Amino acid sequence: MPIVTIQQFPRPLEQKRELARRITEAFVEVYGAKEEAVQVFFSEIDGEGWAKGGVMGCDKTDK
Amino acid sequence: MPIVTIQQFPRPLEQKRELARRITEAFVEVYGAKEEAVQVFFSEIDGEGWAKGGVMGCDKTDK
Amino acid sequence: MPIVTIQQFPRPLEQKRELARRITEAFVEVYGAKEEAVQVFFSEIDGEGWAKGGVMGCDKTDK
Amino acid sequence: MPIVTIQQFPRPLEQKRELARRITEAFVEVYGAKEEAVQVFFSEIDGEGWAKGGVMGCDKTDK
Amino acid sequence: MPIVTIQQFPRPLEQKRELARRITEAFVEVYGAKEEAVQVFFSEIDGEGWAKGGVMGCDKTDK
Amino acid sequence: MPIVTIQQFPRPLEQKRELARRITEAFVEVYGAKEEAVQVFFSEIDGEGWAKGGVMGCDKTDK
Repeated sequence: MPIVTIQQFPRPLEQKRELARRITEAFVEVYGAKEEAVQVFFSEIDGEGWAKGGVMGCDKTDK
Repeated sequence: MPIVTIQQFPRPLEQKRELARRITEAFVEVYGAKEEAVQVFFSEIDGEGWAKGGVMGCDKTDK
Repeated sequence: MPIVTIQQFPRPLEQKRELARRITEAFVEVYGAKEEAVQVFFSEIDGEGWAKGGVMGCDKTDK
Repeated sequence: MPIVTIQQFPRPLEQKRELARRITEAFVEVYGAKEEAVQVFFSEIDGEGWAKGGVMGCDKTDK
Repeated sequence: MPIVTIQQFPRPLEQKRELARRITEAFVEVYGAKEEAVQVFFSEIDGEGWAKGGVMGCDKTDK
Repeated sequence: MPIVTIQQFPRPLEQKRELARRITEAFVEVYGAKEEAVQVFFSEIDGEGWAKGGVMGCDKTDK
């Protein structure tokens, strides 16, 4: 622990790389967690697998 | 909130569209939730990623 | 399957009862799912366990 | 219930088959659970979707 | 990894202790996983937080 | 989206407050995400609900 699971749209690897680094750094500095204890899982989903306000992401025009 | 995550077999988009609409409607009518606050995530999995009663979905003959 | 996990604020039992009924009904009518196959998990969390826009729920003044 | 969700690296089907069998057997023998009540979900993720210690799996040299 | 999350009814500690041991053993023997890499999370929920077939657990008479 | 779920030991509110702020900031700066779109859920669990290496957290002597 801690285990971090992120539900998000697909993102380029370099963005995920930097985000994972920053999230891990936050746990180390705020919680005093051991760096190696922090795991981050990216659960990527597209507009055909997600809906908000009753409308599928792929049907939204206001993205 | 509320965040709804559904683990399910893959389904056609139009079925997911209607299901998301009805689930969101239920939250609005039963909880008085704001429509835009309701998010639905479809976590689709096939028979090679799911087991019931110790048997993988893809090995089941009684589907 | 399907397994539905809902992350939400705590709600009275009778609201959860009605919501579970309506969600299950939606799966039966839209997916043709067997009623007994639908499971709904309510993962309730309060303002000290949830943040939006970088602000904890318990610190929000615009609820 | 019980619903078991496993976040793991991709594995060959026959390994998942045996693991599901053994996990289900453990629930039956330890909890006295009904075999058919036990569901196992394999949520497979690769090195571009997982980080440990602030480093993406795909960037690790010590695997 | 692997991270195992179990949604289940509340169980006595000694049952969870034995179940965690057996699940970890299965990963080590079937996947060749390192014992220390296996984490098990028990997400316990009671009849007021779970429904099956549209009926809350606490309302069921056929338990 | 993004929805961040953190499985962790219980922590004081002020630590969760700061961690949520920093995680949200990381999404805004790295992904260009809208601050209000980022939600963080703290799923807290103690040593009687978590095991590592086949040993329950509450039974561990090397914490």
